[in-house]
Amino acid sequence: MSRAALPTFAQVREAAARITPYAVVTPVLRSAALNALSGADLHFKCENLQRGGAFKFRGACNAVWSLDDAVAARGVVTHSSGNHGNALALAAATRGIPAHVIVPEGAVRTKLEAIERAGAILHRCEATQAAREAKAEEVRAATGAELVHPYADTRVMAGQGTASLELLQQAAGLDAVITPVGGGGLNAGTAIAVHGMAPHIDVHGAEPMGADDAARSLALGHRVGPFVPDTICDGLRTLIGESNFEALRMHRVEVVTVSDEEVIAAMKLLWNELKIVVETSSATVLAAVLKRPERYQGRRVGLILSGGNVDLDALPW
Amino acid sequence: MSRAALPTFAQVREAAARITPYAVVTPVLRSAALNALSGADLHFKCENLQRGGAFKFRGACNAVWSLDDAVAARGVVTHSSGNHGNALALAAATRGIPAHVIVPEGAVRTKLEAIERAGAILHRCEATQAAREAKAEEVRAATGAELVHPYADTRVMAGQGTASLELLQQAAGLDAVITPVGGGGLNAGTAIAVHGMAPHIDVHGAEPMGADDAARSLALGHRVGPFVPDTICDGLRTLIGESNFEALRMHRVEVVTVSDEEVIAAMKLLWNELKIVVETSSATVLAAVLKRPERYQGRRVGLILSGGNVDLDALPW
Repeated sequence: MSRAALPTFAQVREAAARITPYAVVTPVLRSAALNALSGADLHFKCENLQRGGAFKFRGACNAVWSLDDAVAARGVVTHSSGNHGNALALAAATRGIPAHVIVPEGAVRTKLEAIERAGAILHRCEATQAAREAKAEEVRAATGAELVHPYADTRVMAGQGTASLELLQQAAGLDAVITPVGGGGLNAGTAIAVHGMAPHIDVHGAEPMGADDAARSLALGHRVGPFVPDTICDGLRTLIGESNFEALRMHRVEVVTVSDEEVIAAMKLLWNELKIVVETSSATVLAAVLKRPERYQGRRVGLILSGGNVDLDALPW
Repeated sequence: MSRAALPTFAQVREAAARITPYAVVTPVLRSAALNALSGADLHFKCENLQRGGAFKFRGACNAVWSLDDAVAARGVVTHSSGNHGNALALAAATRGIPAHVIVPEGAVRTKLEAIERAGAILHRCEATQAAREAKAEEVRAATGAELVHPYADTRVMAGQGTASLELLQQAAGLDAVITPVGGGGLNAGTAIAVHGMAPHIDVHGAEPMGADDAARSLALGHRVGPFVPDTICDGLRTLIGESNFEALRMHRVEVVTVSDEEVIAAMKLLWNELKIVVETSSATVLAAVLKRPERYQGRRVGLILSGGNVDLDALPW
């Protein structure tokens, strides 16, 4: 299941109001050195400083607080052991409702500990997509918990769009906004939010070459099938969702693909120049801007740094 | 020379007005996880996000813009190859005047490159304090450049105090503010700024055990002599300045000493929980709060994270 109605711009604004009491208005950072290097005027929206260390809290929080009291009381469930699982656990805690997170064998221990610390109930299963979905369905049937999909969910996409509502208020006069593309929840939400506020601003995506399904799908004009990802960007190994892809097409999103080497170099630049911890997936956006100077030079560009959850004992350089 | 008149609170406020066009109003970050761990309500002032990656830009910028035009035209000189040298180079560039930085043999290459990139003229000398001071005097005599000492300088101390003026506006109701202590420019400026605004707030310092001259000096009631530092905190290996020490004594600053192991553990916590890059010196303040829970539990504490200039290829864990 990767189809869900796209949110309207009004739903993005409603999401912003809904999550205001819980989410952080993340700062926008700039760097003279990175401006000089890129020839562009860069505005970095720091979602690594969001609750849970990733933009995912926005969508999860909007989903949790969209539920009727009776539905909410039965809890929420998801099958992401990454940033979305953690975000849903944190969001459920803000409402005092149960969160069930399906975790496949072999998931990173530190991530599971974080999810458990946030108060979620973990359910283990095999590491296949089918096993995860089956387990989620089993938990849903047993508990009545509401499934909150990581990206193919109207409420989630609306929530992710709120980062750009803030960004456009914090950085005036942007010409383009660029986000990483995995399942496409962030990019679709961004396109809807940005074009709701300012239809002339370009929305771009950045994708690792080893998971370039969105770029290939846009080039072909239809969504490609499942593929085996080969990239260091663990947050972007997902096939883009069906409606997410439609949003990218409708909003004429341009996707730039970057190599893992370019991602690592950009990640190190972000750490060194902005003095912040960002994960590989986040670095795709700077890598894209540096790779295509002709697209960005002389322009004001907003870059959404998606998260900062890394293993400090296993840095990629 | 480590004596300079202490700035007044009025001078700190003047410094704030003077540096406003050039310095970043750095954000204050919070973390539910670190609050839970410490039992205190922690407010982190992120000077690692300041221009040049350290609070040092504040003092250097105030010194540079305090000069008469005729004096300024001859430039500025300092004998710090660390964050202060870089900050002075950046500050001089904002006024379009020459900056001379004395760099001892063996100084870290990446730091020298940053200083050169900021537009400073490097002057090499032997790695002793005497050689550095002699070289600075030589440059001063030859060029007429104004010496801007890293911490024993009224203008520098006033500038460093501006971080706390901002902090107290950003985080209401603080009970204590804690800063790292090296030469004592930041801590003295902080004490003057904080007590100028709110005399009831405690000002604390954090010092590595291997460079605990301020703690020992306060215990003895007089400033100890030169010592051989043994700590991973490269920014804090300095003997506290004479007037800086007097400021600490006058303002009843309490200094907590921490081991290098405690610093490294705190540094990793800051990276993981706040998602920011801070250097070892900065981590002393969190290490101090975690080491002395009885002093901080239940209190609202401001912690000044002094800088984020680290070698990503040589992390201490």
